[in-house]
Amino acid sequence: MKKIQLEESEMPTQWYNCIPDIPNGVKPPLDPETKEPMGPEKLAAVFPMGLLEQEMSDQSWIDIPKEVQEVLHIWRPSPLIRADNLEKALGTKAKIYFKHEGVSPSGSHKTNSAVAQAYYNKREGVKRLATETGAGQWGSALSFACHKFDLECKVYMVRVSYDQKPYRKSMMNTYGAEIIASPSNETEFGRQILKSHPDTAGSLGIAISEALEDAGSREDTKYALGSVLNHVIHHQTIIGLEAKAQFEKIGEYPDVIVGCCGGGSNAAGIMVPFLRDKLEGKKIEFVGIEPASCPTLTKGKYAYDFGDVAQLTPLLYMYTLGHDFIPPGIHAGGLRYHGMSPILSALVRENLVTPSSVHQLECFEAGRLFAQTEGIIPAPETCHAIRGAIIEATRDLNDPKTILFNFSGHGMLDLSSYDKFYSGELQNYEFPEEDIAEATKNLPVI
Amino acid sequence: MKKIQLEESEMPTQWYNCIPDIPNGVKPPLDPETKEPMGPEKLAAVFPMGLLEQEMSDQSWIDIPKEVQEVLHIWRPSPLIRADNLEKALGTKAKIYFKHEGVSPSGSHKTNSAVAQAYYNKREGVKRLATETGAGQWGSALSFACHKFDLECKVYMVRVSYDQKPYRKSMMNTYGAEIIASPSNETEFGRQILKSHPDTAGSLGIAISEALEDAGSREDTKYALGSVLNHVIHHQTIIGLEAKAQFEKIGEYPDVIVGCCGGGSNAAGIMVPFLRDKLEGKKIEFVGIEPASCPTLTKGKYAYDFGDVAQLTPLLYMYTLGHDFIPPGIHAGGLRYHGMSPILSALVRENLVTPSSVHQLECFEAGRLFAQTEGIIPAPETCHAIRGAIIEATRDLNDPKTILFNFSGHGMLDLSSYDKFYSGELQNYEFPEEDIAEATKNLPVI
Repeated sequence: MKKIQLEESEMPTQWYNCIPDIPNGVKPPLDPETKEPMGPEKLAAVFPMGLLEQEMSDQSWIDIPKEVQEVLHIWRPSPLIRADNLEKALGTKAKIYFKHEGVSPSGSHKTNSAVAQAYYNKREGVKRLATETGAGQWGSALSFACHKFDLECKVYMVRVSYDQKPYRKSMMNTYGAEIIASPSNETEFGRQILKSHPDTAGSLGIAISEALEDAGSREDTKYALGSVLNHVIHHQTIIGLEAKAQFEKIGEYPDVIVGCCGGGSNAAGIMVPFLRDKLEGKKIEFVGIEPASCPTLTKGKYAYDFGDVAQLTPLLYMYTLGHDFIPPGIHAGGLRYHGMSPILSALVRENLVTPSSVHQLECFEAGRLFAQTEGIIPAPETCHAIRGAIIEATRDLNDPKTILFNFSGHGMLDLSSYDKFYSGELQNYEFPEEDIAEATKNLPVI
Repeated sequence: MKKIQLEESEMPTQWYNCIPDIPNGVKPPLDPETKEPMGPEKLAAVFPMGLLEQEMSDQSWIDIPKEVQEVLHIWRPSPLIRADNLEKALGTKAKIYFKHEGVSPSGSHKTNSAVAQAYYNKREGVKRLATETGAGQWGSALSFACHKFDLECKVYMVRVSYDQKPYRKSMMNTYGAEIIASPSNETEFGRQILKSHPDTAGSLGIAISEALEDAGSREDTKYALGSVLNHVIHHQTIIGLEAKAQFEKIGEYPDVIVGCCGGGSNAAGIMVPFLRDKLEGKKIEFVGIEPASCPTLTKGKYAYDFGDVAQLTPLLYMYTLGHDFIPPGIHAGGLRYHGMSPILSALVRENLVTPSSVHQLECFEAGRLFAQTEGIIPAPETCHAIRGAIIEATRDLNDPKTILFNFSGHGMLDLSSYDKFYSGELQNYEFPEEDIAEATKNLPVI
């Protein structure tokens, strides 16, 4: 069977919170001023209480509201698909399955959390959301979700992606959002950066600062983040929960799960629903793939750091390359982030997730092979997971594994990046090991 | 239930040939020289016998080869989806369902026939296919299919689409095809046109001539057409056959089926599997929607005409605006064709299909509303079917119908057209009734 489908009635009705299951837990966010754990009240200026409760929850299961389920049903459950044509092309006996999150309206897994976030904001009377976007996938997802729940939406889009991916703007326009390149002249922080770095490609860290400043300065506006935070990871567990049910249907179980890592939400979302099994002794590997140009998990420091450049966020305990690190303008814009989800960071620290880094060119090559064999053109971020899956599938041809990877999004709006790859314009970038001291010299002292 | 799915095992294993069921049949193609019916032997220079047998078949059912089924399983059966969010936005009690053909690798229904055509060519030892493409959907589909069956692929892409939709080229490149803007300097006919009309936007009729010239001039090459011909319609009946099974699953039946009409394959493909029921007295309407700028069915002549500008094809009995008519550069490139499938033409002539024309701007408006409510951004061609479905759903609010339309393809690679719509750059074009005499003055005399 090529595609393993679930009925709508089989879609999970609860999100899974893995934090109670992580052996040493996840350290709380700290208030940058007091260095004390930060309670929900201080965060309530930018997030609705419904999401903050999830962020700090110690319950393993969180009900998915009916209104959210209804919107998710537009495309969920998403199919689990056997990449048997890719297997043949690789000459491997390994079985490769992928969870196809590219079927969502905006084309990626991001929509899963966007719908939930828009819902809780609407429920608490918020009128407008401000956010940032890297490759544009989160911005598109939130634009769609805001339209569904009748909220205004303002998107600060990292300059390099704004220029590389013009169709993302058209998509956000279609959903009625307002989009501006970041750094912009519309925030104090954006103007500062433009003054000191007029030609900057921008970064997620800068765009987050701008969106936070926007949300902090308007009564009617709150902020939404597309990855990193606990509640976002919880929302994305629907991917792994569905995949688990789909594997049960065919009487199989994955030996390895692969996800690409930017802020960590798609990787954690597909992996953590299998975590309890692993902790109970089941043999299963989790592999997180990141770009060698922005190697947060493989070369970063595990420390408290800010989530943004302007130091507006709480301090998060995570792997980081330093909050003022600006990664090279690689085409997987969604992976250009200095930090990493505290949940995923904790799982890496406890050796429950194995991080690995790959280069841009081998990823596009993997993406092209996937498109030619399985038909679907992957997003550059997703190409990283495909590259990871190919490595696992060809590592030892005498020991074929069952591999599951998260096909986080399609690349229909990233084709200009493929053009650059085909014409030989792209290059690899490696973050030098010795640069980590310089990059993290401004880490806050706890 | 939002999405009605079928298992792979429920995918039809036969295509339906509706010709034996059409009351007065479909007139055969004529040899332009002798004006006599054209046998397969003369067409064998450009088509493989496997497809010619289907083209001329009098059997109602044609087995789908296992090798074709296997590739179709990559995305088929496609979902039938209830557009309940659109219904709500329209304030109608009508039920609107759509068959989502945008889930195919290249993003449209075209892949259904592309896979079949590539298979039969490969089976007969062909090494290379030449084809034309309007909006790029057929070209992408055939590029993908050729890669699956290890054939070379050369695509003549209508100039206006080539310029409007650069990402289509990237997609065809990804699948390993060679693409050139038509008219091109690579064929004798292309050079002629460029000489007389150096600034032409091109047309499907011109691009067909170039691809035919290419195929006719090389031993290793045959030609593939993405619509119009009988065998293409047969391949597309898989859409309607699946839809019928899906309606049976939920115990419903459509009152109206709507499709957009360029060459006729997606409309006929979803409609004709319901034709026998209609002929046996079941109350069901078929509505074919075409652009007012290229109103083949609503203002054309029903006559024998060439399928291309250079008069290389056999004479087809169909509705036509004249083989040398070059439609305005509207953004639904796939609907810019002077002729219409002989099967669909016969169904219109016999009042079994009702044709109707709509304008570009109302179609984009319908497409935006669909995207905002159902999430998925439609191709400009598909916007015509959506506009048609909206007209049916709001025609009489006291008599709510069950409407099925063919969502022929997504618009991820057409977003620049939406940008032009949003910025007010697009306009409507109406083909003046009185121009039909001039347009068809060169119709061959039979």
